[in-house]
Amino acid sequence: METPVTEKPDAPALIALDWGTSSLRGYLMDAGGRVLDRRSSAHGIQSLPVPGIPGFEQAFADLCGAWLKTHGKLPAVAGGMVGSAQGWAEAPYVPCPADTGSLAGKAVAVESASGVRVLIAPGVIFDPPDAVPDVMRGEEIQISGALADHPHLAGRACVALPGTHSKWVQVTDGRIARFATYMTGELFAVLSRHSILGRLMLDDAAASPADRSAAEAAFAAGVRTARDGLAGDLSHQIFAVRTLGLTRRLPPEVLKDYLSGLLIGNELVSGLARMRDTLAGDTPLLLIGDAALCRRYVRALDLLGTVPAALLDNTAPRGLFQFAVEAGLVTSPVSSDRSDMP
Amino acid sequence: METPVTEKPDAPALIALDWGTSSLRGYLMDAGGRVLDRRSSAHGIQSLPVPGIPGFEQAFADLCGAWLKTHGKLPAVAGGMVGSAQGWAEAPYVPCPADTGSLAGKAVAVESASGVRVLIAPGVIFDPPDAVPDVMRGEEIQISGALADHPHLAGRACVALPGTHSKWVQVTDGRIARFATYMTGELFAVLSRHSILGRLMLDDAAASPADRSAAEAAFAAGVRTARDGLAGDLSHQIFAVRTLGLTRRLPPEVLKDYLSGLLIGNELVSGLARMRDTLAGDTPLLLIGDAALCRRYVRALDLLGTVPAALLDNTAPRGLFQFAVEAGLVTSPVSSDRSDMP
Repeated sequence: METPVTEKPDAPALIALDWGTSSLRGYLMDAGGRVLDRRSSAHGIQSLPVPGIPGFEQAFADLCGAWLKTHGKLPAVAGGMVGSAQGWAEAPYVPCPADTGSLAGKAVAVESASGVRVLIAPGVIFDPPDAVPDVMRGEEIQISGALADHPHLAGRACVALPGTHSKWVQVTDGRIARFATYMTGELFAVLSRHSILGRLMLDDAAASPADRSAAEAAFAAGVRTARDGLAGDLSHQIFAVRTLGLTRRLPPEVLKDYLSGLLIGNELVSGLARMRDTLAGDTPLLLIGDAALCRRYVRALDLLGTVPAALLDNTAPRGLFQFAVEAGLVTSPVSSDRSDMP
Repeated sequence: METPVTEKPDAPALIALDWGTSSLRGYLMDAGGRVLDRRSSAHGIQSLPVPGIPGFEQAFADLCGAWLKTHGKLPAVAGGMVGSAQGWAEAPYVPCPADTGSLAGKAVAVESASGVRVLIAPGVIFDPPDAVPDVMRGEEIQISGALADHPHLAGRACVALPGTHSKWVQVTDGRIARFATYMTGELFAVLSRHSILGRLMLDDAAASPADRSAAEAAFAAGVRTARDGLAGDLSHQIFAVRTLGLTRRLPPEVLKDYLSGLLIGNELVSGLARMRDTLAGDTPLLLIGDAALCRRYVRALDLLGTVPAALLDNTAPRGLFQFAVEAGLVTSPVSSDRSDMP
């Protein structure tokens, strides 16, 4: 939520890095949490310019060197896969219930070759005694940002973060209470690229209104099949991508929409059931993620009779800022409720 | 079921080809359906020696040339993907209910360069008015063989054929009444090879009793997770392969057993529910397929409280023989119930 700000931005006070598997995004921020400048590169932790620690050093210098030259040694924070065992330094998972304060309390610092201290956020583990553990890295920062911008949601909310590895998160009293991962995006990618289902698919190079309408109908058909399916049915449902293609009941350019509907639909059927107790009453459902992907989830949720309370795009900068505030790196923190700002 | 046969085998009367995607298996048979000789090659329809029709010709000549030279122009039959749109000649799907007679009635003949007539079996399509269609190619021949060897099962049975694309089939009055495909084997392969789940996996090169016991325990844990899962839960369940590996709660060499248990377990949960009406009462459940894979299914079925009535290995030669009998290619057909033979 962007609040109109009339004051002049302060001087640069923080570098915030959202450092994932396939990309690195940097934000230059002032002491009020405003983004003054942003830069990004393809140097995710799996695609560094050179392997290992020198790769992290070089990617950091490439992205932030100009900022540091102009503004001096600013404090820096980083979240995401940069804190994994394959990252710049490992920041072990903190257990649920977790909030921005517990992330800051277990952060791990590295000092770059240029002498800048970079504070790396840990991920979060949900480890119930009677089930298998689940983990996240990066989403906890996005949730910190969402709750900082929308403090009225912190009491109780269900947050879904669609993506390669979607997360369904219960937030209670401002903390991540429990969560579950769904490999929806990765399943879509490996099935499209590496399974028999990809053979009949065509990309929709064209995008006429008629094509879009056919694609939306195929997506909706996939969601409805997921909604009406038996438990354990996914590996049967996806074979329909082949049979509908073979029998030409769906044109090849919308087969991937049908598969997308099946996979997102299955995630929603399970996620809504898993969070049923959380969502009872007035508890809002938030979506955080890429806007186009979130719109797909909204269409699928509609077919399941659910409407999310809000869609939030990139909340990582705000979350990294809150993490820096909790870690004491920013000297004049603003109120956590920006909507109350003058 | 092998019946003791005291007579001398007859002269060669038929060449039967089980011609799938990745392999070609040939059987030289007498007029009583006995296998006199067998040969196989890697020339499945996706790995022909040269592309297109000349590839089918060459693969056929390589496999059967010696038989034809010795025994003259025998009639030949072929089943499997050889009859698909990418096959030697397309034999369009016949609809359910389908039996060996309807397969023979819609067979398509090609004449090889050497002048041998090869009769290709069609696949089967299940196309209910209110759902998506499903298809099989090759399994219908295996079912023909199973029912020929076990005619008491033809009245009513549920047949599961584990594999890359597992099939769950309802047989009523000797016919394939309906069926469903599960992409269990292909999902296992693409997730192990191409997803993040494969990164932590190790092959169990060693096979000490302790290792086997840990592998069986991991498989059983996967089946139980599938049994107790929510609808739509598979893309969540499989992420546990990563978290159990990351947290070292399962050793890397048994992660693939856990994944196998999850995927087979999900197939069984859905397959048994889909066939609940069929399996009510005394209707037997048959498994047809690779013996080691069928044993995995038996262990998983046991955890779900079900015991199959029989496990049958390669029933394709017998099915191809029955197909040849129905097509009138074999002049002295035996009774279809071999257990009644003198």
